Amino acid sequence: MRDAALMPARVCIVEVGPRDGLQNEPSPVSAEVKVGLIERLIDAGVTYVEAASFDSPKWVPQMADGADVLARIGRREGVTLAALVPNMKGLEAALQAGVEEVAVFAAASETFSQKNINCSIDESLARFAPVIAAAREADVRVRGYVSCVLGCPFEGAIDPHAVARVARRLFEMGCYEISLGDTIGAGTPHKTKALIDACMESIPVTALAGHFHDTWGMAIANVAAALARGVATFDSSVSGIGGCPYSPGATGNVATEDVVYLCEGMGIETGIDLYKLADAGAFISQALKRETSSRVARAIEGKRHRETCGT
Amino acid sequence: MRDAALMPARVCIVEVGPRDGLQNEPSPVSAEVKVGLIERLIDAGVTYVEAASFDSPKWVPQMADGADVLARIGRREGVTLAALVPNMKGLEAALQAGVEEVAVFAAASETFSQKNINCSIDESLARFAPVIAAAREADVRVRGYVSCVLGCPFEGAIDPHAVARVARRLFEMGCYEISLGDTIGAGTPHKTKALIDACMESIPVTALAGHFHDTWGMAIANVAAALARGVATFDSSVSGIGGCPYSPGATGNVATEDVVYLCEGMGIETGIDLYKLADAGAFISQALKRETSSRVARAIEGKRHRETCGT
Repeated sequence: MRDAALMPARVCIVEVGPRDGLQNEPSPVSAEVKVGLIERLIDAGVTYVEAASFDSPKWVPQMADGADVLARIGRREGVTLAALVPNMKGLEAALQAGVEEVAVFAAASETFSQKNINCSIDESLARFAPVIAAAREADVRVRGYVSCVLGCPFEGAIDPHAVARVARRLFEMGCYEISLGDTIGAGTPHKTKALIDACMESIPVTALAGHFHDTWGMAIANVAAALARGVATFDSSVSGIGGCPYSPGATGNVATEDVVYLCEGMGIETGIDLYKLADAGAFISQALKRETSSRVARAIEGKRHRETCGT
Repeated sequence: MRDAALMPARVCIVEVGPRDGLQNEPSPVSAEVKVGLIERLIDAGVTYVEAASFDSPKWVPQMADGADVLARIGRREGVTLAALVPNMKGLEAALQAGVEEVAVFAAASETFSQKNINCSIDESLARFAPVIAAAREADVRVRGYVSCVLGCPFEGAIDPHAVARVARRLFEMGCYEISLGDTIGAGTPHKTKALIDACMESIPVTALAGHFHDTWGMAIANVAAALARGVATFDSSVSGIGGCPYSPGATGNVATEDVVYLCEGMGIETGIDLYKLADAGAFISQALKRETSSRVARAIEGKRHRETCGT
């Protein structure tokens, strides 16, 4: 079977909860809580954490303490701490804070690009070119995000080859990995496969990552579809933070717990201890005063409850 | 690609909410609400509803009004109303109520069979043999459920070939379709594929149905895996009723809305209007005073909200 042959033996989880997650939560949390979360994630075996965003504090006040968070954690053997940088100023701040990797972001939809970052896709790529070059000059690797890869809130369906073109340009500009983001969480496994295949025409699958939102409940099925095409890196957010599960139309990253359960259940290594990960999720859910949106975390909670009660 | 070739063009949804769902909800609902739910499901395009269980009212008080519910709905062109029957007495009551199909149930796990229905798997099959024969004598088709197909709460992992043996015996005894139930919702796509393949060694795939619980968040990925093996019938419960989503360790059927969204998004017809289905889900969620556990229903709610507000 072709699928079984492509399936990776090991998957890398890019934990985006402390950045993408917390940035999109209504309740802000302190640097101390962020550090507590990241410490617990590392303790669970997470090796890659997007820990900060060096954006203007005017636009993203939740992330204003990025340098402080990074300083408190410090460098850890075998762990990559990364930050999102929207421009050269952000990169400079990130470099000063000592990040090991940075990430830049473009959209696969013209309308979304205009509404989200006030410029066309081409303009956004032109602006990122010197940022990527400067990061590489400083020996800092750059990850590229492409959003709206399986649909746009304004344009609807997006051609997989349009996504592949943006992904390829980021790759050619020096991004070592392209994270394909289903921003509106509307994709299905069939479309995910078609997208990965389109991107694989010009980018090696080892340089592709999947970033799925669970808005329409399809994220885990899409991760499974991407795994079957050989994708071995997935972005996820512990406890599914970044989208309140009980609000109408909540968008939200797929929960890390659910991705880890899927992978381990399919015999794919993640290096992550699911129970410790659930503890990290419980810690941040409590700090945010919200329920987890991870079904796996809820099932673990139930299992522990039954074990304690002896039923 | 083999997968694409096996994928069905059309899927039949077996709506189990009015029976499996309501039977496992803590709040009982009136016959009137059940009828209201079933009417709305039929209006949305659902063509198969498990509407009642003819079990002892002492054991299953929630289902004591089965005959009343069936009588109020009456026969509908193109719609099958079915009932679960645990024994000959139940079959007789079901036949008297005029059901068009009945369902019997066995387990793939010895321990579960003993704890759930107080007899071994062999004994349960022996008891069902005359029930199946009598139903067929009365020109009523029989569906067979097998539970614990991807794991047992007492025994843990279950050998796919052990499942296949029970499924085959039900098939040989006269069940036209075997519904494979992941009772504890612990399965992953890999295991689902292996299970379907094991069953397909002795039963045509057209006689197999998938019945997935979403306890560990894997149900939609498992449906996708089963679709890829050619399974074209899935049991699901509107709004995911049958397991409170906010209780620790909640088990629960996969939500019909989510299965329909998955299928339609993959170009597979269901004949169901997703928005009307979401209305049926909202109706029963309101009656049960609980939030929906369907992510698709939540996304639809959000979409409608934004459309109304113009944002």
